[in-house]
Amino acid sequence: MAENMIKIVIAGPRGNMGSEAVKMVTSTEHFQLAAVVDSKNNGKLLKDIEGQPALDVPIYEDLSVCLAEHEPHVLIDLTAPKFGRKHMEIAFDHGVRPVVGTTGFTEQDINELRQIAEDKKLGAIIAPNFAIGAILMMKFAQAAAKYLPDVEIIEKHHDRKLDAPSGTAIKTAQLIQEVRVSKVQGHPEEVEELPGARGANIDGMHIHSVRLPGLVAHQEVIFGGQGQTLTLRHDSINRTSFMPGIQLSVETVMKMDTLIYGLENIIE
Amino acid sequence: MAENMIKIVIAGPRGNMGSEAVKMVTSTEHFQLAAVVDSKNNGKLLKDIEGQPALDVPIYEDLSVCLAEHEPHVLIDLTAPKFGRKHMEIAFDHGVRPVVGTTGFTEQDINELRQIAEDKKLGAIIAPNFAIGAILMMKFAQAAAKYLPDVEIIEKHHDRKLDAPSGTAIKTAQLIQEVRVSKVQGHPEEVEELPGARGANIDGMHIHSVRLPGLVAHQEVIFGGQGQTLTLRHDSINRTSFMPGIQLSVETVMKMDTLIYGLENIIE
Amino acid sequence: MAENMIKIVIAGPRGNMGSEAVKMVTSTEHFQLAAVVDSKNNGKLLKDIEGQPALDVPIYEDLSVCLAEHEPHVLIDLTAPKFGRKHMEIAFDHGVRPVVGTTGFTEQDINELRQIAEDKKLGAIIAPNFAIGAILMMKFAQAAAKYLPDVEIIEKHHDRKLDAPSGTAIKTAQLIQEVRVSKVQGHPEEVEELPGARGANIDGMHIHSVRLPGLVAHQEVIFGGQGQTLTLRHDSINRTSFMPGIQLSVETVMKMDTLIYGLENIIE
Amino acid sequence: MAENMIKIVIAGPRGNMGSEAVKMVTSTEHFQLAAVVDSKNNGKLLKDIEGQPALDVPIYEDLSVCLAEHEPHVLIDLTAPKFGRKHMEIAFDHGVRPVVGTTGFTEQDINELRQIAEDKKLGAIIAPNFAIGAILMMKFAQAAAKYLPDVEIIEKHHDRKLDAPSGTAIKTAQLIQEVRVSKVQGHPEEVEELPGARGANIDGMHIHSVRLPGLVAHQEVIFGGQGQTLTLRHDSINRTSFMPGIQLSVETVMKMDTLIYGLENIIE
Repeated sequence: MAENMIKIVIAGPRGNMGSEAVKMVTSTEHFQLAAVVDSKNNGKLLKDIEGQPALDVPIYEDLSVCLAEHEPHVLIDLTAPKFGRKHMEIAFDHGVRPVVGTTGFTEQDINELRQIAEDKKLGAIIAPNFAIGAILMMKFAQAAAKYLPDVEIIEKHHDRKLDAPSGTAIKTAQLIQEVRVSKVQGHPEEVEELPGARGANIDGMHIHSVRLPGLVAHQEVIFGGQGQTLTLRHDSINRTSFMPGIQLSVETVMKMDTLIYGLENIIE
Repeated sequence: MAENMIKIVIAGPRGNMGSEAVKMVTSTEHFQLAAVVDSKNNGKLLKDIEGQPALDVPIYEDLSVCLAEHEPHVLIDLTAPKFGRKHMEIAFDHGVRPVVGTTGFTEQDINELRQIAEDKKLGAIIAPNFAIGAILMMKFAQAAAKYLPDVEIIEKHHDRKLDAPSGTAIKTAQLIQEVRVSKVQGHPEEVEELPGARGANIDGMHIHSVRLPGLVAHQEVIFGGQGQTLTLRHDSINRTSFMPGIQLSVETVMKMDTLIYGLENIIE
Repeated sequence: MAENMIKIVIAGPRGNMGSEAVKMVTSTEHFQLAAVVDSKNNGKLLKDIEGQPALDVPIYEDLSVCLAEHEPHVLIDLTAPKFGRKHMEIAFDHGVRPVVGTTGFTEQDINELRQIAEDKKLGAIIAPNFAIGAILMMKFAQAAAKYLPDVEIIEKHHDRKLDAPSGTAIKTAQLIQEVRVSKVQGHPEEVEELPGARGANIDGMHIHSVRLPGLVAHQEVIFGGQGQTLTLRHDSINRTSFMPGIQLSVETVMKMDTLIYGLENIIE
Repeated sequence: MAENMIKIVIAGPRGNMGSEAVKMVTSTEHFQLAAVVDSKNNGKLLKDIEGQPALDVPIYEDLSVCLAEHEPHVLIDLTAPKFGRKHMEIAFDHGVRPVVGTTGFTEQDINELRQIAEDKKLGAIIAPNFAIGAILMMKFAQAAAKYLPDVEIIEKHHDRKLDAPSGTAIKTAQLIQEVRVSKVQGHPEEVEELPGARGANIDGMHIHSVRLPGLVAHQEVIFGGQGQTLTLRHDSINRTSFMPGIQLSVETVMKMDTLIYGLENIIE
């Protein structure tokens, strides 16, 4: 095995993100997929399972056994919230660095897990959103708001989405709110002749939610200044958009000796 | 004078649109600016007036005298609503075809003026909006809605604008409403977690109004269908955007023998 | 069966477009899927075939037998070019109206098939592109170019596409060329300091091809006029975008008694 | 005078940028316009000059006399390249902090002027581009390229522009080139069927230049990654877009004791 090769186990290889992660790891030159952990098919190979890729990769139902036998550098956990913490503890026990995409961690969970990571000098990342483009959009939005405080957000999603505005739009507005002086935008005597025309309002920022068939997940953050506008836009068309973020996280945990929460904290 | 040269008088040459119209007429090869009609400076030339272009074009305060002396083909009237009807009658009396950009005409005004135009076999156009790009956007929006009935409108203007949504957005929605079967858009169980997020609602169509410094006047009409979206967008940055519509109107009244209301009715 | 119900046979139900068409027909209220024609599995039901939807729809290998037994109103043919003409002739023999998405018809094929359609008073549609949004974009582009002759095209596709510019971009430019007076665009003394910056050139129109991962199939047609721009944009994210065009075609052939080539010719 | 009020002299008050700067300074609460320096009208007031704003602000032809009499905190110099260095030296002599928008400084000029600034502990800024939105776009583009190395640039300008691509597009590509591993983009077997379709090429990045009437100055930087795109866009409609950058520079020189070249270096 090449010196800089990173040996990886994936937990949850049949899910939407897990199946993409299998493709990503096996197509990345300096990554090696040692084994996968699943809720069934213990002892079989991925290629034996219908609908799975033709890979000679063994399947384990027990994470601990898997890590003991294969001694990977990194565990990518894309299972479900209820397994997240337990899987991280098992990984740390085996000296394996976890990259975790499940949600549901409490602040106490994170603090306790960080303590373990630091005691064992192991890198670890928990990220509720691995879409690197969306993370960059939010970081840039926060940076721009210091200089161009007038801003509106337009988020667009497919028409089966139930909530408006989207979580990403709300988070973007909150990140901007942290850095800009609170201000009321628009003309002070502005009249909304049809209710809702000016959108939702977070701290003076207006947010507009578009829902149409043919859309997937899109957001524009528009900053207006004298004689100019600056627009930051992210368009996501499917779950493969999370893969560059997972890849970056795998590379980054190898160089760290603590736990980081949120992909934004490993991006400069 | 060349055979196909169109001889023109402009009323209101010092206004925002009038001053652009003077430039447009004098820079159009087959147009000739014979004279202008203004509320002052009778008998002087445009070039004698401070801030006016260096043109040997005579100024009249009396429209009737001006038309009698110069016998133009077309009168471009960009004055004020109170003069609109009177100026058209004077033009018809002199066999001159009027292109009128003032508003405030009643349906009765239009019917009576059309009768005169037809009696005298003279073309005439009254257009409250000469922005040919905006007219095309509205026409195309109406045509597309027959095939792609899910639609939302985003209009964006400078933050000194008082009303929301814009008149153009409302008119666009009304034109769409004429042709599509009324429908509620978005998920039936959709929840607006922050009020206004989903915008204003006209017959199920959602309209969003963005107001920021650095914007001028912009509109997007977004149609969503299975696996695709179609977007029609108009961006206007200043009043010169009305000139191609006035130019087209001048050319069109020469070939007509009735009155047409609305630029959309001379565009195929 | 309801009076206005349209009974349909689909040929090619396992292909990319065919499988979407099965979903579209079975989820459209006034459409009924009577049977499918495939190259294998004669006598089975769709639900018996792995990977196919759980439908009690019989499979035939022989189109003629299928049409004789089911007497549908419409045949949707999404097979391959070599079957297109033959399948249409069989459909006409059985009094069935064909909606055909295969390519490869010669002008002679079309003329001869149109003669049969008219003799039998049967509607028929052959369409190389069923993406209704793309067709509308092209029609509107042609209409706009009469009034705003300065135009550039930006098409954006995934980075596995081999040819540039795209066929749709070239067809759009050709449609515009039919209606506008040929003109050289840009400043006459313009200098391309890096070769290719100003894009490809068709009759003075500039075309720009963007290729990036994360894109699917997108096109913008931008018209510039004094003080304004008008932009027509189509974004396609997958093959479901062809379904509204097939649905419209099915409804339209029921009211026709000739053959039409090209979806653009049944759109007003 | 309020304690935090910044007293300012503007050189070049009748130019395009200078006249906007006069408006900006007089409409900013904590800025005070003490005097202006011009090539004529010595001893008059701005309000005495036709076409100038109605301000009781004195005009000087000699910068040194002006600074001696008014003792401003900051000199905003928007004159011409040939005056840039001399004006800065005079400003430093009077203990005044210069904010300079002229170009033409050599590296030696900058080094020598920085030495004077540091000797006198005076802040100074020279910025060839004060459009804060454009600067942010370039900074963000450089930051994003580390994570999403596939990128294309589309810049759009009015059709009187002579050079393509624009200076900003070239500078953006160079900034990206500094941080990303050089790569060839697009399919390796890609064929440009019409020459120029794929644009200009800087280190594998493709650049496309659109020129149309109705445009002013616009740029999009599009990053593509698996399943997603990130777009950074700047739209500038007139020279007022430089004002927020000048305002920020005035505020920043007050807190500095060296010379900074380039607005990007005072933005975090």
